[in-house]
Amino acid sequence: MTSLVEINAQRLLSRIEQLGQIGGLEGGGVNRLALTDSDGQGRDQVVEWMRELKLAVTIDEIGNVVGRRSGREPGPPVMTGSHIDTVATGGLYDGNLGVLAGLEIVQSLNEASIETRFPLAVAFFTNEEGARFSPDMMGSAVHQGSLPLKAALATTDKEGLSVESELARLGYLGRTPVNSLRPRAFLELHVEQGPVLEQRDVDIGAVTGVQGISWTEYRIQGTSNHAGTTPMNLRHDAGYAAAAIAVEARALASRMGGSQVATTGVISLSPNLINVIAREATMTVDLRNTDETLLCEAEAHMHQFVTKLARQEGLQIDSQVLARFAPVSFNATLVDAVEDTARTRGHSVMRLPSGAGHDAQMFAPNCPTAMVFVPSIGGISHNVRERTEPRHIAAGAQVLADVTVKLASGG
Amino acid sequence: MTSLVEINAQRLLSRIEQLGQIGGLEGGGVNRLALTDSDGQGRDQVVEWMRELKLAVTIDEIGNVVGRRSGREPGPPVMTGSHIDTVATGGLYDGNLGVLAGLEIVQSLNEASIETRFPLAVAFFTNEEGARFSPDMMGSAVHQGSLPLKAALATTDKEGLSVESELARLGYLGRTPVNSLRPRAFLELHVEQGPVLEQRDVDIGAVTGVQGISWTEYRIQGTSNHAGTTPMNLRHDAGYAAAAIAVEARALASRMGGSQVATTGVISLSPNLINVIAREATMTVDLRNTDETLLCEAEAHMHQFVTKLARQEGLQIDSQVLARFAPVSFNATLVDAVEDTARTRGHSVMRLPSGAGHDAQMFAPNCPTAMVFVPSIGGISHNVRERTEPRHIAAGAQVLADVTVKLASGG
Repeated sequence: MTSLVEINAQRLLSRIEQLGQIGGLEGGGVNRLALTDSDGQGRDQVVEWMRELKLAVTIDEIGNVVGRRSGREPGPPVMTGSHIDTVATGGLYDGNLGVLAGLEIVQSLNEASIETRFPLAVAFFTNEEGARFSPDMMGSAVHQGSLPLKAALATTDKEGLSVESELARLGYLGRTPVNSLRPRAFLELHVEQGPVLEQRDVDIGAVTGVQGISWTEYRIQGTSNHAGTTPMNLRHDAGYAAAAIAVEARALASRMGGSQVATTGVISLSPNLINVIAREATMTVDLRNTDETLLCEAEAHMHQFVTKLARQEGLQIDSQVLARFAPVSFNATLVDAVEDTARTRGHSVMRLPSGAGHDAQMFAPNCPTAMVFVPSIGGISHNVRERTEPRHIAAGAQVLADVTVKLASGG
Repeated sequence: MTSLVEINAQRLLSRIEQLGQIGGLEGGGVNRLALTDSDGQGRDQVVEWMRELKLAVTIDEIGNVVGRRSGREPGPPVMTGSHIDTVATGGLYDGNLGVLAGLEIVQSLNEASIETRFPLAVAFFTNEEGARFSPDMMGSAVHQGSLPLKAALATTDKEGLSVESELARLGYLGRTPVNSLRPRAFLELHVEQGPVLEQRDVDIGAVTGVQGISWTEYRIQGTSNHAGTTPMNLRHDAGYAAAAIAVEARALASRMGGSQVATTGVISLSPNLINVIAREATMTVDLRNTDETLLCEAEAHMHQFVTKLARQEGLQIDSQVLARFAPVSFNATLVDAVEDTARTRGHSVMRLPSGAGHDAQMFAPNCPTAMVFVPSIGGISHNVRERTEPRHIAAGAQVLADVTVKLASGG
């Protein structure tokens, strides 16, 4: 029989507020870009809390921090965690919630003097956001062996500062080898960052997996010319091509339906003047689908469309894949456990895929993995106005606690 | 019987090269933005040439410079001219050709000791390009009464410097009243700035008029959101709307055919990030047609499309008309004269409208007006690579000379 633990939501919320002070922005929100001074101060605060909770803290070669609580039996821990770095104008919940909920579980277990069968670990991973250093989910990717350590350490920001030098500067270039820990299971609590749970008035999301992501940048070379004197049939208009690709991406997603989304977030024209046909355009297409086959079909369609467009318009269009992740499926048993636990606790729950990338996806190939989502008010994310209702924070952290403690009890 | 005069094309080309040295750019091209130091030096050079040719030089209240050659009879002159200001990375021909061809006609008449019946005038007008001060064709518009002098003088550039203060600084804030000269006729020689003559292998364009121009800027307000987590049907994507408007403008021009052209030269998204649905977009549509009714129809169609799009996508789209000129028709007799003269001189010739605005259009409502076009190599304009074949320069200047001298002879 598993002894469940009741978490203290007020204490969790208070830690979220405290951590949000570090790098806090006037008027709300927070800026703790990865490996800046404020990220360093945030790390120090969380490590201090970990030590207060008697966790055994290790720092690995890419700066991931793991706090361990031993169990009655040795061996790999049940792990939970997320990240504490933010985008430049981020909110208090993205990432931080998952890390601090882990600490809250430990504190509740400590206070209830519960010793779990297996060890528990709470982790935060370096540079999940990818807003300063690319790629995102860097720490967890290195941790689970899908990104080489050396490449990650050598990554530089716009000023040419490397991950390695910034980790060393902040005192987080640790010695624990990466890619050495295979947890018994990995669980992550996170805000949805989208509008689905709120729109359906659901408390908890049992995340079935992470959408596959395909990012392509198109660089279009046309001919700059006079907007008045150049007949339509003699144009090589890079701006038109960029617009046509964006419109086609939208039409494709609408035709495909299901989980397929398509976004053109970047369009930059040159010279970008009202009466000059654009010589150059740079634009991006972000395609996502939970189904790898469908995602490949979407990519193939866009490729064909762009090839034909370049020929028709007399343009040179070069494409570059900026990111490509196959869809990730979470562990069916764990997804069921999240769903059942939420229901047992009296919460409404639905299954949904994650449209955003998360540290958890790096663990999915190596150990049973799942995620718990809580609603984002207005679906707003990566924004100082990011919020989640306190009751949803409480619900999500309790579900995470129940599933984690059950797993750590061998349940 | 009219005494025609043979111009010296080599001398004209040499003056074009000399003027092109002033504000010349390394590697070719020229930067003489209106009322900069280099424009001032260019003005001084042309005024010096005018005086060498015994023209009576006047400078008016908006800095237009007119050089007069008297005829046997007093009264209004037959006028020719254009502008010598350029865009920031312009060529040597745009505008300059028309002014310097005027001087070449005067010099040829002087050398042949021909006194015309009516006076002749060669002019250059302030700020035709509109690249530093808006609107374009400022000097000719004030000269012919379609733009108030005070408003033009008060116009400021990005640094807050006014036309009036810059004219004064350069010594070109003249005293001759504007809007006081109605020429007998106005003729302008200009490079086509488009590919039509070259594509059809024609030497001379007899310009029938200037397309009407309608410039609209759209400011689109959507909702910034996560490109992965936001379902397609819950998006308010300002970037998509900008692209859709650009694609519709192109489709409209293709459907309408004829002289209708449509261009989206500006698209700027915010935040312009690959994985963020754009919150804001600014974009422009430039519509042109030689027929005012058709131009109005095109405007009405775009207005309907944008209104419907805003409703469908849940966006706020504000539009602002940045420029609106009705089409201008040149004088039928003068257009015929250009065509006949070109043919008599053994050149191939075609009638075509101008897709670009020109100083001549400001004269069209007030006196018989026409233009002579010569081919632009590759249709390239507003570019340091702008070129016209010397033989076409010679042909265009001779046709201008013939028509001008005929008119000044009362022919």
